[in-house]
Amino acid sequence: MSAPYLLYYWPTIQGRGEFVRLALEAAGADYQDVARLPERKGRQQGMPAMLACLDGNVTRQPAYAPPVLGHGELLIGQTPNILFYLGKQLGLAPRAEAGRLWLNQLQLTMADWLTEVHDTHHPLAMGQYYEDQAAAAALRAQDFRTTRLPKFLDYFTQVLANNGSRGNFLVGGKLTYGDLSLFQMIAGLRHAFPQAMERLAPRCPALSDLHDSVAARPHIARYLNSRRRLPFSEEGIFRHYPELDG
Amino acid sequence: MSAPYLLYYWPTIQGRGEFVRLALEAAGADYQDVARLPERKGRQQGMPAMLACLDGNVTRQPAYAPPVLGHGELLIGQTPNILFYLGKQLGLAPRAEAGRLWLNQLQLTMADWLTEVHDTHHPLAMGQYYEDQAAAAALRAQDFRTTRLPKFLDYFTQVLANNGSRGNFLVGGKLTYGDLSLFQMIAGLRHAFPQAMERLAPRCPALSDLHDSVAARPHIARYLNSRRRLPFSEEGIFRHYPELDG
Repeated sequence: MSAPYLLYYWPTIQGRGEFVRLALEAAGADYQDVARLPERKGRQQGMPAMLACLDGNVTRQPAYAPPVLGHGELLIGQTPNILFYLGKQLGLAPRAEAGRLWLNQLQLTMADWLTEVHDTHHPLAMGQYYEDQAAAAALRAQDFRTTRLPKFLDYFTQVLANNGSRGNFLVGGKLTYGDLSLFQMIAGLRHAFPQAMERLAPRCPALSDLHDSVAARPHIARYLNSRRRLPFSEEGIFRHYPELDG
Repeated sequence: MSAPYLLYYWPTIQGRGEFVRLALEAAGADYQDVARLPERKGRQQGMPAMLACLDGNVTRQPAYAPPVLGHGELLIGQTPNILFYLGKQLGLAPRAEAGRLWLNQLQLTMADWLTEVHDTHHPLAMGQYYEDQAAAAALRAQDFRTTRLPKFLDYFTQVLANNGSRGNFLVGGKLTYGDLSLFQMIAGLRHAFPQAMERLAPRCPALSDLHDSVAARPHIARYLNSRRRLPFSEEGIFRHYPELDG
């Protein structure tokens, strides 16, 4: 299909939408970040267009939450599902079924990891302020830093080591959306937990290498230096609260 | 492929493995629940076989966590990924790509929902006892019952209403693995939060109907009455702690 891709996501944060943005950017795809466009009467853009994707009275197959990707007649929700589709469309996934399933498995594991990152600052109620659950967050973050984070880092380090292909890729011998997502995980974790990540860096040098090689790819380097790349912030998933690091 | 399916999952709980069991049972598939078979020297069964799937020194593409499905040369992790594969294999998914993506989107939304259920009793540290985080669990469970649970129930009620096909199915006009998973969500939530589910039942009658129609399917009814169906318990994801209900 030659229709442009339409990304519907919160306009002011990286969040889960960033995993989709990175895939679109890496492939040089023609896309619009719809909710970041100004609202205009009669035009399907701005926040109202994003909210319509979630409204089952307007959209027959509504998403539970953003991001949502529109492409031609398709409207696709859930980040790993969007990437599964885009991987095939944009040449960012293996062609064989076994490789696509393995990549999807790794992406779903990153999705679980990301949810655990989110829950370090919102362990009790995602709709309430961090400040109102800071004591519980300190406990959850401690468990994350000492138990969960090393386990995830070790896992992906082993996956990289076990990939027999040349180059530092998660799956096979060329870039997939999984590498882009792993770059984002490492970048985000370094923002949120700089001390913990520095402490753990010696056990996962291959993850640092992957981060750097993805960041240096021309399309990605140009994107990261553009205004299209939103900054990390304490509104997103990767938040730097010094009291949660250590 | 005519090879039997091999499910690797904890042998004493329903957990995430149950979503896979239900798909295999509904299709009358030839499968083994490997970790529930007795350990025997030189045989790949029992708990050691399951743990080998997670060990990157033994398995080239290890899973981060069970369940894992073996089928011929394939070894597939992550529940929604396993179901995506089985859906095609067992005729429990639409054939067209758009339908398969929509079903996968719904399955991923149920996976998110399930993680939120888990976190009601383990909001601070999944590796520690419930009793050591019971106070935080009470707060998380309250938010779940009053905010998140109604939102998920409303969402899936709307999805059912918006499906224009005959019959009470999530996607199209015949049974998919999504219906089996939604049955399991409702059954589990009724076990864990009987009061809350009774209170919320009037707003989601279509979910009760779906639960009942899935439970009445011959293959499923036979399974639910067999010893293969493990009971709900306070070791699994859906746990009944009266103090978390209300």
